[in-house]
Amino acid sequence: MESTAAGISALAEEAKELQETAASLISRTTSEEDALRQRVAALDARINSLRSPLRGSKDFDKVEEELRRVRYILSEGDAAAFLPSKFHGMFLRMFLGPVNVRANRKDVQLKVKEEYNNFRDRTAFLFLCLPSLLLILRSCIWGGCLPALPVQLYQAWLLYLYTGLALRENILRVNGSNIRPWWIKHHYFAMAMALISLTWEIDQGPDCAQKQIGVQLFLKWAIMQGVAMILQNIYQRQRLYTRIALGKARRMDVVWGETAGVEGQLLLLCPILFVLQGFEAYVGFLLLNTALNGSNLDWQVITCGVLLIVMAVGNFANTVQTLITKSRVKAKIKRGKSRQELHQLNQGSDDKSS
Amino acid sequence: MESTAAGISALAEEAKELQETAASLISRTTSEEDALRQRVAALDARINSLRSPLRGSKDFDKVEEELRRVRYILSEGDAAAFLPSKFHGMFLRMFLGPVNVRANRKDVQLKVKEEYNNFRDRTAFLFLCLPSLLLILRSCIWGGCLPALPVQLYQAWLLYLYTGLALRENILRVNGSNIRPWWIKHHYFAMAMALISLTWEIDQGPDCAQKQIGVQLFLKWAIMQGVAMILQNIYQRQRLYTRIALGKARRMDVVWGETAGVEGQLLLLCPILFVLQGFEAYVGFLLLNTALNGSNLDWQVITCGVLLIVMAVGNFANTVQTLITKSRVKAKIKRGKSRQELHQLNQGSDDKSS
Repeated sequence: MESTAAGISALAEEAKELQETAASLISRTTSEEDALRQRVAALDARINSLRSPLRGSKDFDKVEEELRRVRYILSEGDAAAFLPSKFHGMFLRMFLGPVNVRANRKDVQLKVKEEYNNFRDRTAFLFLCLPSLLLILRSCIWGGCLPALPVQLYQAWLLYLYTGLALRENILRVNGSNIRPWWIKHHYFAMAMALISLTWEIDQGPDCAQKQIGVQLFLKWAIMQGVAMILQNIYQRQRLYTRIALGKARRMDVVWGETAGVEGQLLLLCPILFVLQGFEAYVGFLLLNTALNGSNLDWQVITCGVLLIVMAVGNFANTVQTLITKSRVKAKIKRGKSRQELHQLNQGSDDKSS
Repeated sequence: MESTAAGISALAEEAKELQETAASLISRTTSEEDALRQRVAALDARINSLRSPLRGSKDFDKVEEELRRVRYILSEGDAAAFLPSKFHGMFLRMFLGPVNVRANRKDVQLKVKEEYNNFRDRTAFLFLCLPSLLLILRSCIWGGCLPALPVQLYQAWLLYLYTGLALRENILRVNGSNIRPWWIKHHYFAMAMALISLTWEIDQGPDCAQKQIGVQLFLKWAIMQGVAMILQNIYQRQRLYTRIALGKARRMDVVWGETAGVEGQLLLLCPILFVLQGFEAYVGFLLLNTALNGSNLDWQVITCGVLLIVMAVGNFANTVQTLITKSRVKAKIKRGKSRQELHQLNQGSDDKSS
């Protein structure tokens, strides 16, 4: 008994000591990190202040590119953890509360991004298969009439999927990803649509084929969405392979000229994306048409129709904007390269003349 | 232009230097934290190894209490951040991916807990008001027949609420809260029920009052749930006030004798909780009864009935277990106190004899 008591008081001593060590370690690292955070923020502010007065001047492009390279050193290495934190956003606060989801190491941030891509891969496959399966079973087994339960299970899965995507994309944004705000908003709209589709009455009875036109259109849209997701994933993965093949040393270059290695894929991807966006809007109009001309005056059909049209227009506008940005960046790089070559030529002649 | 170029290269130098400082700071703190983590884990393992061989012996209670105090030093201070991390769990991984939601400082962990309590407070009020409002409007304005949209909006809010609660509770668990696993499971069941209720067809027409019995029972259960939440929040808040009133110095004592300051509230809370759980099971049986005896043979009604009964039984079992644990802890503290008094008396007589 005595030895146990002695053992316990030794443990208590050690616990107190560990507690003190932990407290001093945390306060020391906190103050060191705060100091570094201030220096990084100050440098970040100076980069931005150099950029703005030059806007419109003839040197703007060149200075802009060099400043971007400086910014890149800050944002792609360990210093990234000390850049001013982005606002977590309403969506994350609504679901998670004030918890910090920012990884404080670059490798952890990259892991989060990788897992997001894997999640997209896994789900894109299901995204294509599940609605196809429902439509095939409808023709082959269910005699043209979808039963409610499998469709609702699928819709519940869609709701989970879009919530998961929206949460992950918000987390990526906090971790420094430059994901376009529209794609996150797009997932909010899709969440709303999945939720609304759950309340959608799936009619049975003799004329169900007629009454279920809305649901069938929804499933067809989902199949198209699956095709778009798989194509985008292939494209993104190709880009990742290109970046890996170019090696870490050229990671910087790749970020400016994202399309460089995969010109062909983008040429294929864009028309397909535009066709899909057209189909999305068409399904939206069909839904509105069903709601307004038929017996099917449910608010769900009208709302889903409007949402689909909004999403199609937004997707189109954002794809076009992405293309414009990409081609501008590429033009800049080309100009930069030719300027560099000119510079090298000049230097060469200087060398000769000297 | 020259000065701008010089300015930019100075910025680039500084960015590189900050990058190196950040890298060395991160690698240094990582190794220091890892070392501390190992020591904390080793001490934690030794505490557990001392505990097990004594189980059943007469000194077990005393040693157990002392070990618990040692463990408390580790888990309530800054050292808590270095205790072995709990597995994040499937639920968080499903929604958020591999992101770390553990706060590395105790004050941040406490802030997360406080916000969770505030979230509960805010929602408990809505939880009571919304279904009451629906039932009142049904009798006064809607002529005994609930329209679909307001009910479905309410059900969508419920789904969000339970998802938010389940996510926050999982995050609390990762941050060292000893929340009973059942309460998290309970929210998974409630999520399922909210989701199912969304697919629930809300009949209109002349005999809607009869057909809507299931939905009405669901709303009545929700009102009861709101009452339970508000009472529990008041109780928890009272406990928090007691802890604050006792001061930080006595926080340790309060954790063992949680009920000490609020004996009266618990005596009031328990019977109410038991009545509510009985009502929950009763609503479950009523739903099953409606489904089996009436025309309303929807799978939703049956599943919701079964879920309500499972939740009622689980809630009852866990409330009883909590009460048993609390009374055991109290008995231990009383025994501990009388032993201490005896010890002090003995010491007193020893002093006299010397």
